[in-house]
Amino acid sequence: MIQAPYLLFLGDAPDNLAAKMAQGIIDWRPEAAAGQYRMEGCKANLGIKDMTIQEAVAAGVKTLVVGVVNRGGIISQGWKTVLIEALEAGLDVACGLHNQLRDEPDLVEAAEKAGRSLFDVRVPPVQYPVANGKKRTGKRCLAVGTDCSVGKMYTALAMHREMEKRGMKATFRATGQCGILIEGNGVPLDAVVADFMAGAVEYLTPNNDADHWDLIEGQGSLFHASYSGVTMALVHGGQPDALILCHEPTRPHMRGLPDYTLPSLEDLRDVALRLAQVVNPACKVAGISVNTQHMSEADALAYLADLEARMGIPAVDPFRQGAGRLVEALACI
Amino acid sequence: MIQAPYLLFLGDAPDNLAAKMAQGIIDWRPEAAAGQYRMEGCKANLGIKDMTIQEAVAAGVKTLVVGVVNRGGIISQGWKTVLIEALEAGLDVACGLHNQLRDEPDLVEAAEKAGRSLFDVRVPPVQYPVANGKKRTGKRCLAVGTDCSVGKMYTALAMHREMEKRGMKATFRATGQCGILIEGNGVPLDAVVADFMAGAVEYLTPNNDADHWDLIEGQGSLFHASYSGVTMALVHGGQPDALILCHEPTRPHMRGLPDYTLPSLEDLRDVALRLAQVVNPACKVAGISVNTQHMSEADALAYLADLEARMGIPAVDPFRQGAGRLVEALACI
Repeated sequence: MIQAPYLLFLGDAPDNLAAKMAQGIIDWRPEAAAGQYRMEGCKANLGIKDMTIQEAVAAGVKTLVVGVVNRGGIISQGWKTVLIEALEAGLDVACGLHNQLRDEPDLVEAAEKAGRSLFDVRVPPVQYPVANGKKRTGKRCLAVGTDCSVGKMYTALAMHREMEKRGMKATFRATGQCGILIEGNGVPLDAVVADFMAGAVEYLTPNNDADHWDLIEGQGSLFHASYSGVTMALVHGGQPDALILCHEPTRPHMRGLPDYTLPSLEDLRDVALRLAQVVNPACKVAGISVNTQHMSEADALAYLADLEARMGIPAVDPFRQGAGRLVEALACI
Repeated sequence: MIQAPYLLFLGDAPDNLAAKMAQGIIDWRPEAAAGQYRMEGCKANLGIKDMTIQEAVAAGVKTLVVGVVNRGGIISQGWKTVLIEALEAGLDVACGLHNQLRDEPDLVEAAEKAGRSLFDVRVPPVQYPVANGKKRTGKRCLAVGTDCSVGKMYTALAMHREMEKRGMKATFRATGQCGILIEGNGVPLDAVVADFMAGAVEYLTPNNDADHWDLIEGQGSLFHASYSGVTMALVHGGQPDALILCHEPTRPHMRGLPDYTLPSLEDLRDVALRLAQVVNPACKVAGISVNTQHMSEADALAYLADLEARMGIPAVDPFRQGAGRLVEALACI
């Protein structure tokens, strides 16, 4: 468990896009973000209070979060000076980069000396079990996509926020590095060894109250040649009661696969439901979440109305319209 | 690449069942097994020549293969004495156990001193790429099962042997530890990190002659809650032109999952074909391989005839009837 509140470290980020991970924390868990730390030359700005390490400690910050994509893929010497200062001042350090804190001997040494922890959120923190497929109590909702990066995390987070607002019992279950930094814990599923993927998802979504919903962050797509195995483990390990179909209508081909077109939402519905019913025969497709950011308001609304008429389940863009109707659809499950 | 010929090390195995992995090598690659090494008290016997380490070296053996499941799951001190003698005498050592040779400092030291290699066949030997889904030349056949351990490896090996006998171009592509020891190389798919599973299968089955067949060893089952993600990576990374459905008709429930019944062969056909056609729209289901070892000859033949009439494709038990008809079915693909 990564302890909040966080100091969001933006390093020498060239723009706000490089700080996307930190922006995710601001968007979804603003109360966890006490301030930002920007080095000289940093062009990103999250619009929250700038803090030195000492100011952060005084404000009760527990963890410095590296929330930025670094240039050249390395943890630079300039960064390290700040990270070591943070460790010595009593903060933990968490990082979502491919490059790992634990591979930097000077950071490891500083953390040991200070008695602080380094969290590499792409590294599985425990040895997960093999999945046992046993029916668990409580309810689970999984977002599945026609492609990668179509808004599955956004959908789960928006539904979770809406359910909390309505006083429903719900937990967001993170399966990727950005989700883990937002939630403070989770399973970095794409880094888990094959045999233990479904078991990791079972571990993440244990028995719960009968009226509690896990909102499970999806990964990949059953139709994506590179990552479909990861998605399959989510479908079978997650034992979903409800599926939300996620789609981005303007994408010309599968992400990273120029030879592959996206499946239709009907194809996704049929394939995902058939597979989910292997572990939960009662599973239903509850609704459709469409990322319409590249469409005009009028086009988006027309598209959604048409889709809803065609498929007979609620179709919404939670960014434009909120996640209320998706949450209400769960009540029918 | 693990170099043949092998000396099969049976340790102090209590019976032939414990030496199942060595038996697989005897069954499928007898020319690679120069002899067996049995310690005092060993109750297993493969029926091949007993050899000392010195005799094995004199006979041209290159690798000592630990082909036995050990008691208590550890590499015992008694074993180590023999393994170190083998390394010092100039042999490599290969091992398919969960316990790894590389975790034993005295073995590592002996191998380094002697300039020999330790092969832990459950450990991926290279960093596999992310799958790119690009269409490859050559043909590929994948065995998929209604469950784990229904005869997928046996089916691929039997088809491969039959194709070699007929002078066809074919390669067995191993994806598990037993298959890797039989073939001398392959991908230990269940130990690969999630994001790289499909890429590992692409790596294993590269471009080839137009009339060359890869016979890909299957793993798990699309219907097995614990391992379906691994199977999915085989279906999408393997880009099969032909699927062979594998089944064991007397099994009361899915292996290790007492709450799950097996799917029908029709269900397997429909789900596996739909998923395979995502990466290869021309993929077909070529035939059915049934493990009838728990049925009488008469019952087995009646079952197969009935199945063939019902599903309209060849249905055979390659152990009873040979793999000829399955190989012929590939010609129609």
